[in-house]
Amino acid sequence: MSSLPIGIFDSGIGGLTVQRAIAKLLPHENTIYLGDTAHVPYGTKSRETVTRYSLDIADYLSQAGIKMLVVACNTASAYSIVKLRQLLSIPVIGVIEPGAQAAVEATKAGRIGVIGTEGTVRSGAYFDAIKKRDDKISVFLRACPLFVPLAEEGMLGNRIAALTALHYLKYFRDEPVDTLVLGCTHYPLLKEVIRDAMPEGTILIDSAEATAHEVQNQLISGGLLQTHITDKPKHSYYVTDSPERFMSVGESFLGEPFSDVKLVDLDG
Amino acid sequence: MSSLPIGIFDSGIGGLTVQRAIAKLLPHENTIYLGDTAHVPYGTKSRETVTRYSLDIADYLSQAGIKMLVVACNTASAYSIVKLRQLLSIPVIGVIEPGAQAAVEATKAGRIGVIGTEGTVRSGAYFDAIKKRDDKISVFLRACPLFVPLAEEGMLGNRIAALTALHYLKYFRDEPVDTLVLGCTHYPLLKEVIRDAMPEGTILIDSAEATAHEVQNQLISGGLLQTHITDKPKHSYYVTDSPERFMSVGESFLGEPFSDVKLVDLDG
Repeated sequence: MSSLPIGIFDSGIGGLTVQRAIAKLLPHENTIYLGDTAHVPYGTKSRETVTRYSLDIADYLSQAGIKMLVVACNTASAYSIVKLRQLLSIPVIGVIEPGAQAAVEATKAGRIGVIGTEGTVRSGAYFDAIKKRDDKISVFLRACPLFVPLAEEGMLGNRIAALTALHYLKYFRDEPVDTLVLGCTHYPLLKEVIRDAMPEGTILIDSAEATAHEVQNQLISGGLLQTHITDKPKHSYYVTDSPERFMSVGESFLGEPFSDVKLVDLDG
Repeated sequence: MSSLPIGIFDSGIGGLTVQRAIAKLLPHENTIYLGDTAHVPYGTKSRETVTRYSLDIADYLSQAGIKMLVVACNTASAYSIVKLRQLLSIPVIGVIEPGAQAAVEATKAGRIGVIGTEGTVRSGAYFDAIKKRDDKISVFLRACPLFVPLAEEGMLGNRIAALTALHYLKYFRDEPVDTLVLGCTHYPLLKEVIRDAMPEGTILIDSAEATAHEVQNQLISGGLLQTHITDKPKHSYYVTDSPERFMSVGESFLGEPFSDVKLVDLDG
């Protein structure tokens, strides 16, 4: 069991920041990544639709053989994680709980901001996850829909990106926070303009890194750590639509070129 | 037959600019609009995937009863129109041919620019449609991926929109054109910042308006014009995912509030 890969999925490219954080923290683990590029983005879709897609993917990855499922997508974590845990017999880790936990540990003022897609914000999942841990903490949510296309366009530090960050984050002038959760897997790429648009000293929580630590914890506690120590772990990539765009845009998310990306048909 | 509605579909909200242009030009016609919001956007998806979605929708609208099908989406027009015409016995009108025709008639310099989504640009459909009409005309294509989220965010005239337009359209300083086709149904909302970013005197071709004229022409030539003259035509709206966002964001595209939007399940 411990030699099986970790399954990771996202609606598209963003979850590669999570895959990258996991591969960095756990260099001996194999991974299978599935980007549901035929249905990207999840952020504007309903709970029912996103859950239907998530279950199809979990089914596919389970049949391929995985020891753990990482839902590397905030919207899918918000909408589908309970259902996925009910149906799967392996550990299922989302990106919301680890991010929320890290934010609760970091805040001193008891005021946490969360930025994400419309779907993540509307779901209220971060609000609930933080309040469940400490209901005296105030939570302020802000959707930033332009951040995803900015990240995918590679506009990470130009004036358009800086102005867009100011446009969305000026909200936190009226509602000051000392900790800000990057509640979307695309946002780590925009960390610099986000940091510049926030008051100095604001703690940024990168949910990709927080999730990688939770993966490590659960692998250890479940006795699932890879025992076959290798310097060349296997990382496989699957998409549900043309690999071309995934490969060209995803490279900056992954931090290196892809060796191979395969197309799979989940509808068939 | 002539009393049946005109069927119109798009991947989401953008096609409402086409519906609006048709309803304005042909005030006695009934329409059925279907926004495939479960699969939006089409612009980053492959030919096969977009064609599969288009055929499902055409099937649904045909069963509902329509006298003409308007593919109010540039990507679907680029990828699926030939297949749709093969399979349907009613007239099928896309947004590409009317826009290309209007541009060819407008250009004096023989240099036409086309802006659109990645999918529309990659498809080469505008290039082919213009070259087929006059192969001495030079065609310059530019994808503007941030325009759709800007339009949907209602950022139509602020500094971010203006800078983004300059960012994409500076391409036409190196390759000057006298005519620019707005090759995406979202773009008419950004007409002002697009006009400001182009040299004075550039002719903008609004493919929504061009398409409405083509609908009128084909209704007349096919003897399909509505004969029951009413001041209160029926406009129905269907979506494949939660109507909420469609209604709130779509209002500025339609130019008025929706009376009713129904959810349909095409997968079922």
